[in-house]
Parts: sequence; structure tokens; C-alpha cells
Amino acid sequence: MDYRSVETAQEYVCRLDHGADWRGEIEKLADEEGVDAAFFYGLGAVQDAEVWFYDQDRQEYDSMVFSEPLEVAACVGNVSWLEGERFAHTHAVLSRPDGEAIAGHLNSATVWAGEVYVRAFDTHLEREHDEPTDLDLWEL
Amino acid sequence: MDYRSVETAQEYVCRLDHGADWRGEIEKLADEEGVDAAFFYGLGAVQDAEVWFYDQDRQEYDSMVFSEPLEVAACVGNVSWLEGERFAHTHAVLSRPDGEAIAGHLNSATVWAGEVYVRAFDTHLEREHDEPTDLDLWEL
Amino acid sequence: MDYRSVETAQEYVCRLDHGADWRGEIEKLADEEGVDAAFFYGLGAVQDAEVWFYDQDRQEYDSMVFSEPLEVAACVGNVSWLEGERFAHTHAVLSRPDGEAIAGHLNSATVWAGEVYVRAFDTHLEREHDEPTDLDLWEL
Repeated sequence: MDYRSVETAQEYVCRLDHGADWRGEIEKLADEEGVDAAFFYGLGAVQDAEVWFYDQDRQEYDSMVFSEPLEVAACVGNVSWLEGERFAHTHAVLSRPDGEAIAGHLNSATVWAGEVYVRAFDTHLEREHDEPTDLDLWEL
Repeated sequence: MDYRSVETAQEYVCRLDHGADWRGEIEKLADEEGVDAAFFYGLGAVQDAEVWFYDQDRQEYDSMVFSEPLEVAACVGNVSWLEGERFAHTHAVLSRPDGEAIAGHLNSATVWAGEVYVRAFDTHLEREHDEPTDLDLWEL
Repeated sequence: MDYRSVETAQEYVCRLDHGADWRGEIEKLADEEGVDAAFFYGLGAVQDAEVWFYDQDRQEYDSMVFSEPLEVAACVGNVSWLEGERFAHTHAVLSRPDGEAIAGHLNSATVWAGEVYVRAFDTHLEREHDEPTDLDLWEL
């Protein structure tokens, strides 16, 4: 396992804008505050969501669109650099009126309400192409 | 996006009481320790659960009661003030014997066993009525 | 509720090894770094997973094996000592190509890709047998 010991640079309590994009909001904070590495988690609700599943055989993401209101039961992710931009790698567990849970990589979602805790580190994390998985991963 | 830079006042590793209410346990810690703002996450199991889903059209919560043992696969939330009391806004992903996941806003649940990490900030967070969502949200 | 005020000893951003065991990777970090107490959360994908559900009546874990690629939508857990070894108590919410979520206690899973934030505390946590639940829990 590769790991890096980090120190906290700054911590943020965030309220995402109603009607904005969930992931975009986190990237906006990162840009505004100059965050080059962070982990975050949060909760809330969205008006719709685009969720991705990574097909490990084909090594491609498949996209699912849920055009319906969903709770964000749990959202976990991190911020690092990808191809010259700050990228919020975001996973989420969403839920329907009957409690049914839907989960995966959250590409986009329209915020109904969102509360996120962001913990920024005093380091720089960069994603680069990883051969075995065909994903963009960190060198630590 | 609205956000506030915060500093950590205190951190707690918690074991929730068997038979107590999951959310009530976190609010009890907040009251005992004078926590006015926090984020937390944890895991465990419950004997039953009342889960809420927010209907964005009717702008009302609907309640579901699950009278059965469930794993707490993930629990994410925060503590702030609401109408003169400390309130633990709690979301959870629960699961059944076959692995089926149920998720949403966790209003109450009887603890079988619970392990939670609480991170208290040296700030004061207060919820107030938000017009567009009809929810109680923070001014940051 | 029992709780302990803790201070952070060290923080780690981790990339789990492709092909390794998810929980084993976290325990390996804990051993290498001498971590005696920690909480962690993360996200990623696995090639298969063994998920446990605790039967509260029989007071035994039942095991389910999912021999298929799954996203790790959320993973939450902690590190402490159990019977002379560092143990990463790990829960996870996994998901399938159609977004269906599966969740519970994650005993093992083959890492496809994993990103985990580990927060180590300057304390020692030890699990001991708890009579009412027949689980190994902390004395705090």
C-alpha cells in the first residue's frame, strides 16, 4: 500500500448552493481556497443524479441518470489535480422515497440541500494514468 | 457555495449505549461537552430504525419504520443548534441480512452497537428556516 | 454513552494496492506506522467482496460472498486492538452496474482501486468481549 503522511492546512464546513452541481460546488471551493489535496464527506439531498459504474473488464465508466429527487445518505470523496484542473472524486449513496439505496461514482447531481465537511491537506496530490486499472490514480 | 473555515476544538471516539437512541446519544455527548458545531461519522448495528425521506414537491418529510435488526454500514452527520436545542442531523445507510441497503435521514434507531467519531469545531452553527427548500439550514 | 477525548497523532492519505485485500491494506498501514487507534473513510472499487451481517438473535455473523466487480460507494471504519492484533473494523456500501447498493460489515474484498483517509489518535483502543451483544467492543 502506498500512503503519505499529511498535515491539515485548513478545514471547512460547507453548505452547497441550492440548484448548483454537487461536485462542481466542491471544486469551486477548492479553486477559491487553493486546495491541492483534501478529503471530504457529507449529506443532503439532490434533485437528480448521474451515477457512474466502472466496468473493470471493459475498463470504461457506464453512466446512469436518475431524474428524480434523492436523499444523499452518504457522500465520500477527495480533491486532487487531474489534467490541469482540481477534481473532486466523489462517491455517494443516494436513496428513494421507500428507502431503496442507489450508489456509485457521482459525476453530477443538482443540489437540493448539501452539507459537507472538507479537510484540506498541506500537500499536492496529482492523478496520473495507471496501467493495470486504466484509471487516474495517485503516486504517493 | 457558502462555507466557513473552522478549527477543531475537540475530537471524540464514542461507543453508543446498547439500547439507547442512536441520534440521542450523539446529542447527549454534544450537550455534555458543550459542542456547538461538529461533523461525525460512524458504523454499527441497530435493532430498528425510523428513516425519513424529504418530499421536495410537498416539502415535507415522510417517515418509514423498519422494525428489524439492521447493520449501520455508514452513518454521516453533523451537530448544530435548531430551535434552542443541539440537533444531530444524521443520515445513514442500513443493511439487511441479504446485504440489501436502505438509506436516508435517520430520525431514530435503537442502538445494538455503535462506534462514532465526532469532530467538534470552535464555532457556533445555527439552523434557520430556508425559504426555497423549507428546510432548516445554516447561514455561513 | 461512553466516549474518550482524543488527539490526532498522524493523518494518512492512502492508495490501496490493486489486487490486495481491502481490510488487510489498512491493517498493514496500522502495523507499519504503529497505529493503535484510528478512524478512517474512503472510496474505490473491488473485484469481489465478503460481507457479514450480525444476527442479533443468534449472536453470530452470517457471511455473504459477492463474486463480482463492485464500486465502494462508501467505506467507514476504525482501527483498534483485538486479541493481540491490530484490527480494522470495516463497514462498506458497495454497488452494482445498475446502481443497486449492497452494504454491511466488510470482512474482505479484492481491491481494484481504493483511496482511504486514515486519522490516527494518540491513544490505545482495545476490544474486549461485551456480554449483552456478544461482540468485541471498546471500554472507553
